[in-house]
Amino acid sequence: MGDSRTLRLNYADWLRDVPDFPKPGIVFKDISPLLQDGEAFAACIQDLAEAARAHGPTRIAGIESRGFLFGTALAIELGIGFVPIRKPGKLPWQTFAESYELEYGQDTLEIHTDASAAGEAVYLIDDLLATGGTAEAAAKLIRRTGAEVVGCGFVVELGFLNGRDALHGLSIDSLHHID
Amino acid sequence: MGDSRTLRLNYADWLRDVPDFPKPGIVFKDISPLLQDGEAFAACIQDLAEAARAHGPTRIAGIESRGFLFGTALAIELGIGFVPIRKPGKLPWQTFAESYELEYGQDTLEIHTDASAAGEAVYLIDDLLATGGTAEAAAKLIRRTGAEVVGCGFVVELGFLNGRDALHGLSIDSLHHID
Repeated sequence: MGDSRTLRLNYADWLRDVPDFPKPGIVFKDISPLLQDGEAFAACIQDLAEAARAHGPTRIAGIESRGFLFGTALAIELGIGFVPIRKPGKLPWQTFAESYELEYGQDTLEIHTDASAAGEAVYLIDDLLATGGTAEAAAKLIRRTGAEVVGCGFVVELGFLNGRDALHGLSIDSLHHID
Repeated sequence: MGDSRTLRLNYADWLRDVPDFPKPGIVFKDISPLLQDGEAFAACIQDLAEAARAHGPTRIAGIESRGFLFGTALAIELGIGFVPIRKPGKLPWQTFAESYELEYGQDTLEIHTDASAAGEAVYLIDDLLATGGTAEAAAKLIRRTGAEVVGCGFVVELGFLNGRDALHGLSIDSLHHID
């Protein structure tokens, strides 16, 4: 987010720190308090919508599963369609697949080949920007359908993992930045 | 849905039949066309909202993953909070778990113990009502938090699998019924 934008929430107040999840030494940022409160959740979707609108999207893409929680609500708010990017074997129709590196091993994401097309301006949503590998794979998938990726929005950005570097050239909006 | 309610869409027009997915002999109802079209998706959320409002919910619960696609958008539309019901090991905080039978073997769902509480009226959302086992487990989880389940909404109901019988005593709304 640009420094000039005023957010509707202090996001630190709406995230719950869960130590040692999913493994020892990691402090997980639990979004449940944000989702559970109707006013806070609505404010979050408004903040995402304000960021997304600046890029003129014609479609929202969300990454399974937590990206679905914010992505469809955002699509409804903006009055545009939604495209799911899913784990392997979950999408029933013809798909493109992209694999990406994890700390140990690799993972794969898929998109329907007809999920978007040339002329579509897709804004990508996930709950968390960490190393950027997941979002980078998702952006590649969107481009393989012929569409343009006009920006990416995240609720939380773990700045110390330098995900922005992995997403060079993409415009990134995040509501809550953790250094 | 009651017969008196007029839906905003002919849902058959917005679902894609995918033969032999996820296994031979099954015709999968793909919701992608509905999600991808901004106007159709908005109409679907309006239809779900009209059904849900009749039950006076204070919170929406959605079942991972396709229930997330409709559940959070519905929660925003109604101005209330959202509770995710997830596969095992995905929720970071303290959970309740419920197992249920599948055709072969069993599966488990979890909810945060503080996801809702006594006094909350929870409306449950998933994309599909099939045998009802998943929704029944989800309803049990909601009740274990102390909350009441005031109804369940589905986009598609496979009537021939008799899911309503498994959910006896629960009020069920479905937008598209397949006999």
